[in-house]
Amino acid sequence: MIRESIIKDAALAPEGHRKIEWVAQHAPVLRAIAERRLSDGSLRGRRVAMTIHLEAKTAYLAVLLREAGAEVTVSGSNPLSTQDAVCAALVERGVRVFATHDPTPEEFEGYLMRTIETAPEIVIDDGAELVSRMVLHRPELLQSVVGASEETTTGVIKLRAMDEEGVLPFPVLAANDARMKHLFDNRYGTGHSSIASIVSNTNLFLSGKVVVVMGFGWVGRGLARYADGMGARVVVCEPDPVKLIEAHAEGYEVMNSLRAAEVGDVFVTGTGNLKVLGAEHFERMKDGAILANAGHYDHEFDLAALREMAVSEREARANITEYELPDGRRLHVLAQGRLVNIAAADGHPVEIMDLTFAVQALCAHHLANHAASMRPGLQPVPREIDELVARIKLDTMGVEPERLTEEQLRYLRSWR
Amino acid sequence: MIRESIIKDAALAPEGHRKIEWVAQHAPVLRAIAERRLSDGSLRGRRVAMTIHLEAKTAYLAVLLREAGAEVTVSGSNPLSTQDAVCAALVERGVRVFATHDPTPEEFEGYLMRTIETAPEIVIDDGAELVSRMVLHRPELLQSVVGASEETTTGVIKLRAMDEEGVLPFPVLAANDARMKHLFDNRYGTGHSSIASIVSNTNLFLSGKVVVVMGFGWVGRGLARYADGMGARVVVCEPDPVKLIEAHAEGYEVMNSLRAAEVGDVFVTGTGNLKVLGAEHFERMKDGAILANAGHYDHEFDLAALREMAVSEREARANITEYELPDGRRLHVLAQGRLVNIAAADGHPVEIMDLTFAVQALCAHHLANHAASMRPGLQPVPREIDELVARIKLDTMGVEPERLTEEQLRYLRSWR
Amino acid sequence: MIRESIIKDAALAPEGHRKIEWVAQHAPVLRAIAERRLSDGSLRGRRVAMTIHLEAKTAYLAVLLREAGAEVTVSGSNPLSTQDAVCAALVERGVRVFATHDPTPEEFEGYLMRTIETAPEIVIDDGAELVSRMVLHRPELLQSVVGASEETTTGVIKLRAMDEEGVLPFPVLAANDARMKHLFDNRYGTGHSSIASIVSNTNLFLSGKVVVVMGFGWVGRGLARYADGMGARVVVCEPDPVKLIEAHAEGYEVMNSLRAAEVGDVFVTGTGNLKVLGAEHFERMKDGAILANAGHYDHEFDLAALREMAVSEREARANITEYELPDGRRLHVLAQGRLVNIAAADGHPVEIMDLTFAVQALCAHHLANHAASMRPGLQPVPREIDELVARIKLDTMGVEPERLTEEQLRYLRSWR
Amino acid sequence: MIRESIIKDAALAPEGHRKIEWVAQHAPVLRAIAERRLSDGSLRGRRVAMTIHLEAKTAYLAVLLREAGAEVTVSGSNPLSTQDAVCAALVERGVRVFATHDPTPEEFEGYLMRTIETAPEIVIDDGAELVSRMVLHRPELLQSVVGASEETTTGVIKLRAMDEEGVLPFPVLAANDARMKHLFDNRYGTGHSSIASIVSNTNLFLSGKVVVVMGFGWVGRGLARYADGMGARVVVCEPDPVKLIEAHAEGYEVMNSLRAAEVGDVFVTGTGNLKVLGAEHFERMKDGAILANAGHYDHEFDLAALREMAVSEREARANITEYELPDGRRLHVLAQGRLVNIAAADGHPVEIMDLTFAVQALCAHHLANHAASMRPGLQPVPREIDELVARIKLDTMGVEPERLTEEQLRYLRSWR
Repeated sequence: MIRESIIKDAALAPEGHRKIEWVAQHAPVLRAIAERRLSDGSLRGRRVAMTIHLEAKTAYLAVLLREAGAEVTVSGSNPLSTQDAVCAALVERGVRVFATHDPTPEEFEGYLMRTIETAPEIVIDDGAELVSRMVLHRPELLQSVVGASEETTTGVIKLRAMDEEGVLPFPVLAANDARMKHLFDNRYGTGHSSIASIVSNTNLFLSGKVVVVMGFGWVGRGLARYADGMGARVVVCEPDPVKLIEAHAEGYEVMNSLRAAEVGDVFVTGTGNLKVLGAEHFERMKDGAILANAGHYDHEFDLAALREMAVSEREARANITEYELPDGRRLHVLAQGRLVNIAAADGHPVEIMDLTFAVQALCAHHLANHAASMRPGLQPVPREIDELVARIKLDTMGVEPERLTEEQLRYLRSWR
Repeated sequence: MIRESIIKDAALAPEGHRKIEWVAQHAPVLRAIAERRLSDGSLRGRRVAMTIHLEAKTAYLAVLLREAGAEVTVSGSNPLSTQDAVCAALVERGVRVFATHDPTPEEFEGYLMRTIETAPEIVIDDGAELVSRMVLHRPELLQSVVGASEETTTGVIKLRAMDEEGVLPFPVLAANDARMKHLFDNRYGTGHSSIASIVSNTNLFLSGKVVVVMGFGWVGRGLARYADGMGARVVVCEPDPVKLIEAHAEGYEVMNSLRAAEVGDVFVTGTGNLKVLGAEHFERMKDGAILANAGHYDHEFDLAALREMAVSEREARANITEYELPDGRRLHVLAQGRLVNIAAADGHPVEIMDLTFAVQALCAHHLANHAASMRPGLQPVPREIDELVARIKLDTMGVEPERLTEEQLRYLRSWR
Repeated sequence: MIRESIIKDAALAPEGHRKIEWVAQHAPVLRAIAERRLSDGSLRGRRVAMTIHLEAKTAYLAVLLREAGAEVTVSGSNPLSTQDAVCAALVERGVRVFATHDPTPEEFEGYLMRTIETAPEIVIDDGAELVSRMVLHRPELLQSVVGASEETTTGVIKLRAMDEEGVLPFPVLAANDARMKHLFDNRYGTGHSSIASIVSNTNLFLSGKVVVVMGFGWVGRGLARYADGMGARVVVCEPDPVKLIEAHAEGYEVMNSLRAAEVGDVFVTGTGNLKVLGAEHFERMKDGAILANAGHYDHEFDLAALREMAVSEREARANITEYELPDGRRLHVLAQGRLVNIAAADGHPVEIMDLTFAVQALCAHHLANHAASMRPGLQPVPREIDELVARIKLDTMGVEPERLTEEQLRYLRSWR
Repeated sequence: MIRESIIKDAALAPEGHRKIEWVAQHAPVLRAIAERRLSDGSLRGRRVAMTIHLEAKTAYLAVLLREAGAEVTVSGSNPLSTQDAVCAALVERGVRVFATHDPTPEEFEGYLMRTIETAPEIVIDDGAELVSRMVLHRPELLQSVVGASEETTTGVIKLRAMDEEGVLPFPVLAANDARMKHLFDNRYGTGHSSIASIVSNTNLFLSGKVVVVMGFGWVGRGLARYADGMGARVVVCEPDPVKLIEAHAEGYEVMNSLRAAEVGDVFVTGTGNLKVLGAEHFERMKDGAILANAGHYDHEFDLAALREMAVSEREARANITEYELPDGRRLHVLAQGRLVNIAAADGHPVEIMDLTFAVQALCAHHLANHAASMRPGLQPVPREIDELVARIKLDTMGVEPERLTEEQLRYLRSWR
């Protein structure tokens, strides 16, 4: 059953090592956690499966889990985000890898299934890709799992639905919902890297452009904040009326997406939903409009509809597909509608993933030690994990938070 | 038992009417709620007591409740925030008022007690001033109360402690925690008006100054945002390590307050706690430092300690007290440490209070209709109230939120 | 010929002294220049006439010139900006004053003429009010003038026209054009104080509002910057196409004022021109639109046209006049169209005027010493004055600029 | 004498064409000028030499000049900024090219000399590379030149020194100093692309980092603005005291570079000078500090000193060289100290270069028609060129600037 790694080219390892080393230099929190917590032996010999974007930051987490004694298997969570050099380096560092860049759908599926078939005890999941496949296709493997943790908003939404159906026989930690994860990764990390990726890939000037942000959740807020920072005029579209008024109070223009379609120069989606930009939007867009997705899947644009409308499709520039419409307008889709920051750039900033993977490492450690006494189903990350990650981060910054006095604590509890 | 109003000067009414009329022009949400909901008769003849800062926005809420048929009694929640002209106008509009600007502590206490003694059925409270006095001093009046709602974070913290002690015999809605309240009022409203008040009262240039924000809750975020907007360099001090890292990611400098004391030009508190700036801070501050409070009470600075340290105290400018220390440094305290936006200016922006009081009006209406079937104790504002306020606000802006399709709703619920 | 001061009420002096003392605490640059330069006796016994907004900052300059031995006469440059308490304090400090708040046009004119009739040797002018009156009405007094300096863009434009006509028989320094003046006073000073004044006087929420800035010179840039900082969406209208594209690159929306009239919530003018908002704009404005002027004169709105269009006019709030149009729309004009930051607030920030008046004090000192050897007509402020003011300012901040090495200086001069 | 092109690989042309086509789509101003002006035949048969960064935007200018009938020869202005694919495409479009990516110094020099040897009539220069070589090494070729235009601040400084020495026998237009050039290219273009390049090449998180900007000229302002926009805390170092106070008023921290060296996380230079960061800075820097140059040459860091101090040097990541110091600290230099936006990314945004090259195209056109009647030496670009570029840009944006009335024009000229 134990299979050999599948990667593109072992010779790429040196570049992969260099990238991982760069991450190691900028990930002091994760390193501290490896030293202080993972080193206690509780992960020794445990089978860990990870399915996250396979680039250098993920790799560094895998390496540290491996160094803590775990048997680690990884596969990519997105066909375009896998970096072959990093995979090659991982194999040299003792991690089993099933991943290549831009595989066929069948290959991609095969990598995930092979990962499952290692019968993991601890699953670090992304979009519930591994857990949902186990439940649907390999229920017999569920019994070996002691617990899982989930990286994304999309995955947590799915797992909540699964939990309500009662199909989760083990505890699943909603790592995404830890404050030290989503407040930084989803908000600042996605926005920072997605806006920079749009600038780099298009070589266009964002200042003065109208950037339409679809969705004003954590991801949308970050997108709006950095688009604004680069000088864009931001328009926000969102179904939740309260969030829409928040966007307005931030100074963004708010409107329905059918109107936004007419005025936008760049459209960025971050909703976690599907077809948030469809035929009725494409019909209204200006010639030259740029479309980029920063949500989870490549469903946020209705690309099927766009292809049907288009009279031609060509690569206009690396990572940019141009669709020409019958009336001559050209729409430019970045990274084929996949995550623009990770399919067309190096993903989230290192320091952000340092926090996220510190949470994940502690989740794996927690599951290894406490899963037996935890109830099955989706549950929040223990507060101590958030607290510990935050305190270590502040230590690395040399900053001391305020300390409440006894008098102050008493005051906060009193009402008389 | 029913007493006459106590105000400073009935002749000031015309100015008060003018201020209330200005509010009415800029409060379309509250007006719409009065028309659509309050007009159904459910408040007719009900005794309503309100203790909120007595200026024109509060007055407009009182007027609308009165027009809906309630018997309304109001008193001020803060000695310096009461505007005598507004009180005079309220009396002419049929509201009973117990309030004067800058009363003695005994007078202030008397106003609150008189308000309680009207045996209110519905209490709109601020800092739990009325409810806590009833519980402590007039328990016999509690039975006439059908329910209350609470305006502030400070009040909700107190009421939670009371609830845990089991002393709340009626339902209390945490109006502060409604999204349409705290996301706007606590965040944008306090920051916007406090920073503007500091600028207006000092006539100083905020750009390039180091503004130290104590506390990074909703209030602190707003203070930081607008201080930054006026060109200040913002330093944040905060006990919660996660919030401190959020402040860092926003681009603010974070440090312990003992170090901040040395570098700050302006200090603004918004913690809800007491003595967050004390002797050890005053010792380190630069000559000319400005201290302003945007929290609930005038406890955030340890003014007793400052007075003890000072060799002299004088009014340096309207609303600014100068304390000279033995080494010649001068510290400038705004508004005697009371809320700088309301004791030294006109308080929150009208449009913000339009949202807050829309929530409060609907809370009063909800209690009038449903209190009997609600459990006693502190509880959240019903979601429909938030939703309704948000939708009416968007209507006034002419904005339509996105509408999810059936396919999208199904997608969000599916995991297969 | 020497006349007594004309002020409103000598009893107001204590408040005036307090305001001047506050300025003195926050004007270290001007103080240093008084100590290091003005104290050399060159101003002793010289007749100096100043016509600038008569509030505490101007007063402090007048006091320092008086302390340096000059015979100082002051009058106000704007009917609404004179503060009577400050005038009373000035008289007690030995300065001759011809100014009262809100005089009749005849009184205002009389004050200026009395100031001229002191036969000043050095004129510190604002809008060329004194110099133009001398040229037009009292040419015989020109011969006693050794030189003048001019505070404003408007005045420099006028004086350039006068210079081209050859009617300036003495040197006039364009103090406004000194870098340490216009880069700070016109840009940051006007914007900072005007936006804060709009917020304070209206009690409205600027975030999310559309603020239309008329003119994108130094004043317009500052207005846009601080409106943006308070969360507004900024629209810029401007005749110079290059400046308009600069505004666009800053992320502001740019459009013609006829379209802007339809979308703006607040209009702020800073053009130095007349009737930049007229009947065709008023016709298009939304109900409730706010109009504020931050330019030099009260000509920027065509108020005569507005009064003609209106069916009623009333004071809606202190400093706010409401004009109701036949279709029911209400337009709100702040400070009767006069400078909103100075007619409805305390004017520019103290630290900004510290720089401006440091320039002015050095201009007066320069004229006292060198006017005889200067050519007549408009001319730039000597570079050393700018340099000295900047270096003293950096000293007060404890900051040392980079020092170029010999190698670097050589490199900048070489081309081989 | 006429030589064949020298490029790396003709087979790369398709990618080059694609990049040029992308530029063409986003350069409406340059296209309009080609249609309206260049098409008049005045460039037909004229020999034009260009030395500018050889990527797609420059290429598009070369193509348009070629299409207007000129004989165009191009070479690169920087060894690392030449893109081989673009060169290949240019050759196919009829432009003579002497350029390869990363040539030896001898090759690079040879390309420039070959360009000169085409005996150009019109020179579009960058850093005065061509003109200075002609003057120094090939004076006999000067007589064929009718005029030149210069792209950069650095070049203008050099040419001014040359002009003062009297060695410029033909007119040279300071294209850099045109408002439509430096206000956009130097300020927004460099900052936007340099900050994005730093983010993309390092994969680090700029928010919360201290970014030290060396120099507060146009380039420094743009760097500071976009670093701030990405959430960094900006520190500015600058020799001019006035500019330093401007930086302070913008809300940036200002300090001497020796102190900045200790607190900076990222250092970006934009001074046009040499050795602005040297041994005394490297000694103070934190482990992991990032150094990027956005000035003209790779002289802004004293790399020789750094190499001497370092115990090792290695490639830490693509475009990042790591220098390890004896005490273990590692400094990371981007793009070998060359222009970070163009040696490690695609250079300025297309829309910005659309403006710059519109100016350059009109300069070439102007020289072709009017050089004979122009005085020799450095001179400003005619105002009409700025005006025309700005008006065409506004046309493409659909924006109409304000139009002054007769009354307004008269008012601005009057002083009575």
